[in-house]
Amino acid sequence: MQQRQIAFLIYPDMTPLDLIGPLQVMKNLESLGPFDVVTVGERLEPVPTDVGIAMQAERTFEQVPEPFALLIPGGLAGPIKAIANDRLMAYVRSAGRGAQVLGSVCTGSLILAAAGLLEGRSATTHWTFLDHLGRLGAVPVRKRWVEDGNVITAAGVSAGIDMAIALVARLAGNDVARTIQAIVEYDPEPPLGPIDWRWVDDAKIGPTLLESVTPALRDILSGKPELAAKLFP
Amino acid sequence: MQQRQIAFLIYPDMTPLDLIGPLQVMKNLESLGPFDVVTVGERLEPVPTDVGIAMQAERTFEQVPEPFALLIPGGLAGPIKAIANDRLMAYVRSAGRGAQVLGSVCTGSLILAAAGLLEGRSATTHWTFLDHLGRLGAVPVRKRWVEDGNVITAAGVSAGIDMAIALVARLAGNDVARTIQAIVEYDPEPPLGPIDWRWVDDAKIGPTLLESVTPALRDILSGKPELAAKLFP
Repeated sequence: MQQRQIAFLIYPDMTPLDLIGPLQVMKNLESLGPFDVVTVGERLEPVPTDVGIAMQAERTFEQVPEPFALLIPGGLAGPIKAIANDRLMAYVRSAGRGAQVLGSVCTGSLILAAAGLLEGRSATTHWTFLDHLGRLGAVPVRKRWVEDGNVITAAGVSAGIDMAIALVARLAGNDVARTIQAIVEYDPEPPLGPIDWRWVDDAKIGPTLLESVTPALRDILSGKPELAAKLFP
Repeated sequence: MQQRQIAFLIYPDMTPLDLIGPLQVMKNLESLGPFDVVTVGERLEPVPTDVGIAMQAERTFEQVPEPFALLIPGGLAGPIKAIANDRLMAYVRSAGRGAQVLGSVCTGSLILAAAGLLEGRSATTHWTFLDHLGRLGAVPVRKRWVEDGNVITAAGVSAGIDMAIALVARLAGNDVARTIQAIVEYDPEPPLGPIDWRWVDDAKIGPTLLESVTPALRDILSGKPELAAKLFP
């Protein structure tokens, strides 16, 4: 069976849990099947993340031109900076068009959509950015993860773990997915229970977050005024 | 109110989700209270992890001598190499003795126990290493996370997210914990349901894993024969 290359995109100021959740799950595929799971970035040097710690990709764009799967983490300023980076977007377009699986976590789907890869596709993102995703041509769906043809997108941050287990089940079967779930001991017990969305709405957490970050995000796109006006009207 | 420093230990070959899960949760404390959340390592250079990607700490041991909280991720070969590293263990002992919160994820608790910090304490670890934890003087408990006085320990890998939310609730209250839970959208939906432990037992996943790694782990401790005999009899 042919080796299948699964590439996770690394870029500055991303949210590391968006990446590390699914990467920790999917790396196990290497010992259980014909998979090569790698991280890919513009350069082989550490880039900052939104929690302070820096991370370094294993391969450059040139070294992974045609991955079987391309998976893109999100963030807050990070993905907007990525959208403003022509070289990164050229890679997402070329690698993404040829990929048999195209995926994202959180606002990583904004990068896919800005690259023109989600036109008319059902997709999801962090709950605070569903409208933004729609403005870029995708059909936003509020679910933990969404599958539409070869596209699989996860909701915010920690949702990448659920998405990755679903993707493993599709690529390698339920027994492999169950084995990996046991290895990463994914048996969640949120101490305060699931998210109480009514409490979240009442506390105005979404509007407060968006209000505080939108001006800075709009500024990042000052070199792309059309896109800025579309995303942050 | 005095600034409280929360330090996450970084070391070679650790399991990055053990670190990034709780770090992504707890970093949010900085904007919500008097907290400084940092990563600390022996040197300021990238270290490899068990999924390939390299990570770089923000501070050295010398720069964070007396953290308010010390939190230690786990791994497979990584924590055993850490136990064999006298300089790292000296830091864990000195920073750990003074810390008001001492925590771990997965086999990070083996490092705490090997440092003599879990003597007679109830604690947990990855489900495959509960016996090993007991051999180092702790009282192993099979739970998602365990609190015993100032010590809080999580089960394997992804359990660090649950533990971190519990710790945030203790340090900053339930409303802050709920807010952060919404920001990282921790509303788990494991695609195949919770772990089916009977299936895991029948598939012999634990014994198979331990059998395949134990000789290599024992070799790492060849310079500490007493400890090797105790941990891997």
